[in-house]
Amino acid sequence: MHILVLHGPNLNLLGTREPDVYGFDTLAGINEALTLLADDLSISLTCFQSNSEGELIDRIQAAAHDCDGIVINPAAYTHTSVAIRDALSAVALPVVEVHLSNIHCREEFRTRSFIAPVAVGQITGFGPDSYLLGLRALFNHIKKGL
Amino acid sequence: MHILVLHGPNLNLLGTREPDVYGFDTLAGINEALTLLADDLSISLTCFQSNSEGELIDRIQAAAHDCDGIVINPAAYTHTSVAIRDALSAVALPVVEVHLSNIHCREEFRTRSFIAPVAVGQITGFGPDSYLLGLRALFNHIKKGL
Amino acid sequence: MHILVLHGPNLNLLGTREPDVYGFDTLAGINEALTLLADDLSISLTCFQSNSEGELIDRIQAAAHDCDGIVINPAAYTHTSVAIRDALSAVALPVVEVHLSNIHCREEFRTRSFIAPVAVGQITGFGPDSYLLGLRALFNHIKKGL
Amino acid sequence: MHILVLHGPNLNLLGTREPDVYGFDTLAGINEALTLLADDLSISLTCFQSNSEGELIDRIQAAAHDCDGIVINPAAYTHTSVAIRDALSAVALPVVEVHLSNIHCREEFRTRSFIAPVAVGQITGFGPDSYLLGLRALFNHIKKGL
Amino acid sequence: MHILVLHGPNLNLLGTREPDVYGFDTLAGINEALTLLADDLSISLTCFQSNSEGELIDRIQAAAHDCDGIVINPAAYTHTSVAIRDALSAVALPVVEVHLSNIHCREEFRTRSFIAPVAVGQITGFGPDSYLLGLRALFNHIKKGL
Amino acid sequence: MHILVLHGPNLNLLGTREPDVYGFDTLAGINEALTLLADDLSISLTCFQSNSEGELIDRIQAAAHDCDGIVINPAAYTHTSVAIRDALSAVALPVVEVHLSNIHCREEFRTRSFIAPVAVGQITGFGPDSYLLGLRALFNHIKKGL
Amino acid sequence: MHILVLHGPNLNLLGTREPDVYGFDTLAGINEALTLLADDLSISLTCFQSNSEGELIDRIQAAAHDCDGIVINPAAYTHTSVAIRDALSAVALPVVEVHLSNIHCREEFRTRSFIAPVAVGQITGFGPDSYLLGLRALFNHIKKGL
Amino acid sequence: MHILVLHGPNLNLLGTREPDVYGFDTLAGINEALTLLADDLSISLTCFQSNSEGELIDRIQAAAHDCDGIVINPAAYTHTSVAIRDALSAVALPVVEVHLSNIHCREEFRTRSFIAPVAVGQITGFGPDSYLLGLRALFNHIKKGL
Amino acid sequence: MHILVLHGPNLNLLGTREPDVYGFDTLAGINEALTLLADDLSISLTCFQSNSEGELIDRIQAAAHDCDGIVINPAAYTHTSVAIRDALSAVALPVVEVHLSNIHCREEFRTRSFIAPVAVGQITGFGPDSYLLGLRALFNHIKKGL
Amino acid sequence: MHILVLHGPNLNLLGTREPDVYGFDTLAGINEALTLLADDLSISLTCFQSNSEGELIDRIQAAAHDCDGIVINPAAYTHTSVAIRDALSAVALPVVEVHLSNIHCREEFRTRSFIAPVAVGQITGFGPDSYLLGLRALFNHIKKGL
Amino acid sequence: MHILVLHGPNLNLLGTREPDVYGFDTLAGINEALTLLADDLSISLTCFQSNSEGELIDRIQAAAHDCDGIVINPAAYTHTSVAIRDALSAVALPVVEVHLSNIHCREEFRTRSFIAPVAVGQITGFGPDSYLLGLRALFNHIKKGL
Amino acid sequence: MHILVLHGPNLNLLGTREPDVYGFDTLAGINEALTLLADDLSISLTCFQSNSEGELIDRIQAAAHDCDGIVINPAAYTHTSVAIRDALSAVALPVVEVHLSNIHCREEFRTRSFIAPVAVGQITGFGPDSYLLGLRALFNHIKKGL
Repeated sequence: MHILVLHGPNLNLLGTREPDVYGFDTLAGINEALTLLADDLSISLTCFQSNSEGELIDRIQAAAHDCDGIVINPAAYTHTSVAIRDALSAVALPVVEVHLSNIHCREEFRTRSFIAPVAVGQITGFGPDSYLLGLRALFNHIKKGL
Repeated sequence: MHILVLHGPNLNLLGTREPDVYGFDTLAGINEALTLLADDLSISLTCFQSNSEGELIDRIQAAAHDCDGIVINPAAYTHTSVAIRDALSAVALPVVEVHLSNIHCREEFRTRSFIAPVAVGQITGFGPDSYLLGLRALFNHIKKGL
Repeated sequence: MHILVLHGPNLNLLGTREPDVYGFDTLAGINEALTLLADDLSISLTCFQSNSEGELIDRIQAAAHDCDGIVINPAAYTHTSVAIRDALSAVALPVVEVHLSNIHCREEFRTRSFIAPVAVGQITGFGPDSYLLGLRALFNHIKKGL
Repeated sequence: MHILVLHGPNLNLLGTREPDVYGFDTLAGINEALTLLADDLSISLTCFQSNSEGELIDRIQAAAHDCDGIVINPAAYTHTSVAIRDALSAVALPVVEVHLSNIHCREEFRTRSFIAPVAVGQITGFGPDSYLLGLRALFNHIKKGL
Repeated sequence: MHILVLHGPNLNLLGTREPDVYGFDTLAGINEALTLLADDLSISLTCFQSNSEGELIDRIQAAAHDCDGIVINPAAYTHTSVAIRDALSAVALPVVEVHLSNIHCREEFRTRSFIAPVAVGQITGFGPDSYLLGLRALFNHIKKGL
Repeated sequence: MHILVLHGPNLNLLGTREPDVYGFDTLAGINEALTLLADDLSISLTCFQSNSEGELIDRIQAAAHDCDGIVINPAAYTHTSVAIRDALSAVALPVVEVHLSNIHCREEFRTRSFIAPVAVGQITGFGPDSYLLGLRALFNHIKKGL
Repeated sequence: MHILVLHGPNLNLLGTREPDVYGFDTLAGINEALTLLADDLSISLTCFQSNSEGELIDRIQAAAHDCDGIVINPAAYTHTSVAIRDALSAVALPVVEVHLSNIHCREEFRTRSFIAPVAVGQITGFGPDSYLLGLRALFNHIKKGL
Repeated sequence: MHILVLHGPNLNLLGTREPDVYGFDTLAGINEALTLLADDLSISLTCFQSNSEGELIDRIQAAAHDCDGIVINPAAYTHTSVAIRDALSAVALPVVEVHLSNIHCREEFRTRSFIAPVAVGQITGFGPDSYLLGLRALFNHIKKGL
Repeated sequence: MHILVLHGPNLNLLGTREPDVYGFDTLAGINEALTLLADDLSISLTCFQSNSEGELIDRIQAAAHDCDGIVINPAAYTHTSVAIRDALSAVALPVVEVHLSNIHCREEFRTRSFIAPVAVGQITGFGPDSYLLGLRALFNHIKKGL
Repeated sequence: MHILVLHGPNLNLLGTREPDVYGFDTLAGINEALTLLADDLSISLTCFQSNSEGELIDRIQAAAHDCDGIVINPAAYTHTSVAIRDALSAVALPVVEVHLSNIHCREEFRTRSFIAPVAVGQITGFGPDSYLLGLRALFNHIKKGL
Repeated sequence: MHILVLHGPNLNLLGTREPDVYGFDTLAGINEALTLLADDLSISLTCFQSNSEGELIDRIQAAAHDCDGIVINPAAYTHTSVAIRDALSAVALPVVEVHLSNIHCREEFRTRSFIAPVAVGQITGFGPDSYLLGLRALFNHIKKGL
Repeated sequence: MHILVLHGPNLNLLGTREPDVYGFDTLAGINEALTLLADDLSISLTCFQSNSEGELIDRIQAAAHDCDGIVINPAAYTHTSVAIRDALSAVALPVVEVHLSNIHCREEFRTRSFIAPVAVGQITGFGPDSYLLGLRALFNHIKKGL
């Protein structure tokens, strides 16, 4: 089983950026923790971060050929990108949407997700653990469908 | 560590009710799976279901004395109950909100949660696995705070 | 054929409560008239009133085992209860929604019904006659489906 | 007692038009069933269909002189015609609004009725039976007022 | 003169619950202070708290037989309960709505009250003193009407 | 100078229809009063009423050839007819919109006029005098432009 | 018969201010024309302009003692002043609201009038002639009531 | 192949009406151009214009018997007629909606089309060429389905 | 302890103005009753009424130097004056907002208060007694803070 | 005449992506068909696809120097990109907006186009034929302007 | 060059009022700093503050005769005064709107400015420096126009 | 002191693009003028323009290491980019938002800025001078904080 983990804009700053909102973990640290869990579950993992909507779409499209599912933290693009939604919808892979912070405790505009309706499910608010739970959720979802 | 698992209205019908939306698992089955995981994590677990908003509030209040955290699937009360929100907020325990179905794929009124802003986080869309992920998320959250 | 007639909150006050809005008939009188009509149609009838959302849900769930259809006047819960809607939807029995007064002539918030979209149909504005028409409508609907 | 039954735009197509929404009964069939019921109730009946808002208004105005009440299925004009509402309001006859389909299960714009606030009541969702129930409701309403 | 004082959901937690919002007074303390004032005004007082919407409605209905007025802090049900509004409206007793905190300084959804339009008046923001002012206001209102 | 006076739907019922809203004057009486004023101002007058949106449009279009201006009481079509607005806009004659009742004291939906933005001005609330003032206003407006 | 003509803020600039919107007539010229018409109708007239909401209210209150009606062009206060509305409502004199320009062709916020619902009627769009028509309308309205 | 071309209200004025918005072509000219193209495509064509919503509905209903598709410029009825939408939906013929002007550059209320959701597609903004493109689009659409 | 009582626009008309809404008490009478209560509580009292938003702001600013708190009935300015809100907020004195009528039973626009969020609390609906309760509430609030 | 055909995000997946929504044609197939038509019309054609908003803007800006017009299917960016709108507006070339599917039959957010108001016109719903019609429309539009 | 600097309501309290929002500078200090800059730029300056909407309008009107431009901080009237907007629009002088605080970080209602659309530009968020930047901006704007 | 000046999408076209909206100055000219002012203030300046949201984010992130503040004209991304907002928020540098045109005089959607709430302040409407004022404002702001 091969899974793509996608990190949206500004997530490369994790650990340095507004730690009161996003915590002290770095993106490298999160990817490492994900890899450990993936090993446990015998999943092969690819992690990718970009600040560019277009590059994220390109990577999603490529996943159609080499992945069985996607864990995505679309970050700011959650609320503005119909194009990423359409890409996810087009590749027809199971998708799990994750967020570090609880988006329901922040600005009103962060409560709307363009991604959620095309995802299997959404996990929000658990810091880096959101990713780990998301990977586990996706793993279980795919296994159930086999 | 003692955790309360709360099931909101109509969840006692699980497995018989609209299986295309909620799946074939029964509530007893979900509680059993939760207990297995709880055992693994050395958590002591109490499960409670009610169709009554007042009874759910009573149980939440009681949790202040005997629990370290709450996993709640508020079901229909997610969208209408300020009183359950206030109860959760009052007992000041960490709360994880879970949903079986992806509430972002259903009627517009199901996208608003009164509970989410007072929860640590929300997990939605993974069927019974939402509960298991939620228990795990709460466990990690509490351990982190110790 | 067995039909459940459900009366929502405050309907036990009928005949004493705001007669300019709801008329002078008592709930007992309405149940009596319904029973007469039920006898004519060879329907067996159970009538139940509660002020509690939870009890109404419990009764709806029980109907799955002993009824062929439900006539419900959800009264105030019409406009606020997603939980009753979900209960009706879960038991998958034909439902007819009735109202004594014309809800379209009253406060704006009374024009929205959470129940109507899961009912076969809605009858509103004819006083106690709304119930009798509702029973007849449900009877015809069930017979058509046989 | 003389009753006018008004059928709004496109109802002349009944039985041929979108049977999954409106059923297989023709307008002639509905009028026939109404006449049978009217005979039972010793009501004299006039049925009229038009696709033209103006003609429907003309017929409503004429009813002031020769009818005791109106059963109307305003169809699409339900949601757009203030003029028919004003006509009904002007002739000051008791009006019962009926719909074949459950308008609360369809497009959002079909949930608003300009007619309902000037009607005695509304019956929606029972197919041709909506008309029969409507005639009965109007009959009872008029008798009560005598 | 007999007055019913109704406390809505979660008010039993007063003094322990979010003291920065609701203060350190307990419900028992408030009831005591109310009783002292009632004695001064020669009012006989009944105090009742419930977390259940249905029980609150039952108690309001009972008040029609044994009370001259109601002081109610509907708490969370202020914003969601049409059923309590209808109960208050049905018993036709003078009602005074009170709130401990200033509901206009909190979440947007707390600014709408279903109760206020059927009350004589509303007092909000003065902590436990809101109850005492409310009792006084109701006393004066009833005396004026005698 | 030739002026067309257009009366919208249901205005033929004037004098009989809801006199508390529209007064006791008949349409014939209003036309007579208008003719007297027109004689005073040396205006030639044509009066036309229809319940049909299409006929009103036909008459407006015809006015392009034989009239210098239009006084219109669009009645219910004020709030729903883009087609009449377009007709008035197309013939490019000066238009004065009049209403018998004060539309700002009635239902919310009556405060929006599709006609007003293509009219010179609007006169509302003076009963039949609205027409006379409207004719005078149009007369002055046309004279000013000569 | 004594009439007060009230001019709201910035109307003292008339003739100099945005002539493409308001025309070239000065306020003095309009008052003169009004006086001529008042003489014809044997009305005694007082004209008053102020840029201050408070002064306009003071003048309206004074009118209760010495006037039979008010013609008011509330200008910008039309859209923002509940206080002027309340003053007009309090003195209980017949009020006619006039506007020079057609407020329905301008910014969206100019289409809402706080004044219109407490006026007999509204005249808008005819330049200075709006005042003359308004005086005439008020004169007729008062005479009808005598 | 037989196609009905429907022109909505005021389109008979084309060429004379607001040429800056709609251009200088007459309806006759457009029909002529359509006929030329129809000849090229071996389509038999019927053109019909009416200012009456009812007549347009009648013509649409008739098309069920003698046409293979409809090109319609609903003009003002685009934004207000649920009845025409229902007629088009009922006859179940392929429909192409065309507009001369770009409705997205005009008043806000012109951006909503009741017709578009029941049409195959919509062409807007190309003047008379919208019709020719629409006929071509419908022709291709029907051929593809054969 | 020195308290400022501020009366907003049109309150000088009390007793004469719309007695069905505001009662028969005059402003002088209310001030007298307030003075009696103030004497009881050993409060020194200044009462001030103005129809001018600016004068009310001036008086609020002056209160910073000579008062310990403000009881204000902002009347119509409740719903429109950000400037009075800012003045109250700037002087940083405890403020109690009072209303004679129940603003939740009147026009929709009267339910929004710009003042309430910067006040300690709000008392509405008890006629002149609202002032007396307000003074008492403010007195208790200040004493509690000493 | 040189025309730029721009394909927005995810259109490179055409033929493989959700064929029930977008059909089985590939982008290469569409470009080929467009080239055939271009040859017929003696148009020179450049086709360009990108998933990146920025690259699409770059290409639009470049078109100012080498193209006479643009056919654009902005896909998901239709609903979110003010930047592409501004680019199109800046280069001041005639633009035709095309869509494969009927955007009025899909999610609400797809009905708003930021592009349409700066385009000559919009063609939606005809599958690949939308492009061919769009090219033809643009060709005619440019020729008319020569 | 002569410039008017207008300070709206409550700005006379600057330096004493909510220093966390508005800083510690007094109005006198700001006027002094403005005068220094004006001297540098050879501008003659008049500063005026009022809490009264009417007085501010009077001063704006007077500026038509003696000023070349206006720097205005409308404070609370920014969000509520159409009358000040109309005054600024009427005198047809260049206007620069300034704010001490960043109005986009505060209450929702502070984000709407009635003034901005009639100003040359708006400067917000730089404390007293907003005024100095505003004066400089106005100076440059006027010079450019000479 | 080192400042980054960021120009958003399409600003590279300045001077050629819609000069009636944006003026005749080129971006090179603006950068030159900024450099001159920067020299005066002893600021070192970097200017960067991109049409790509991702590249703008990359540059903002880089600024965390080499800049003391950012002047940004986000152009079209002002209204749609949460990602740029998050980037600015993450780097925690003082930001000044500038616009050439007065965004409050244009389309409704241009009045909302995602950037303003995370900026120190906003300057809009002064053409190229907005940049110069913005640089000066940022310079003063940073100096004040030293």
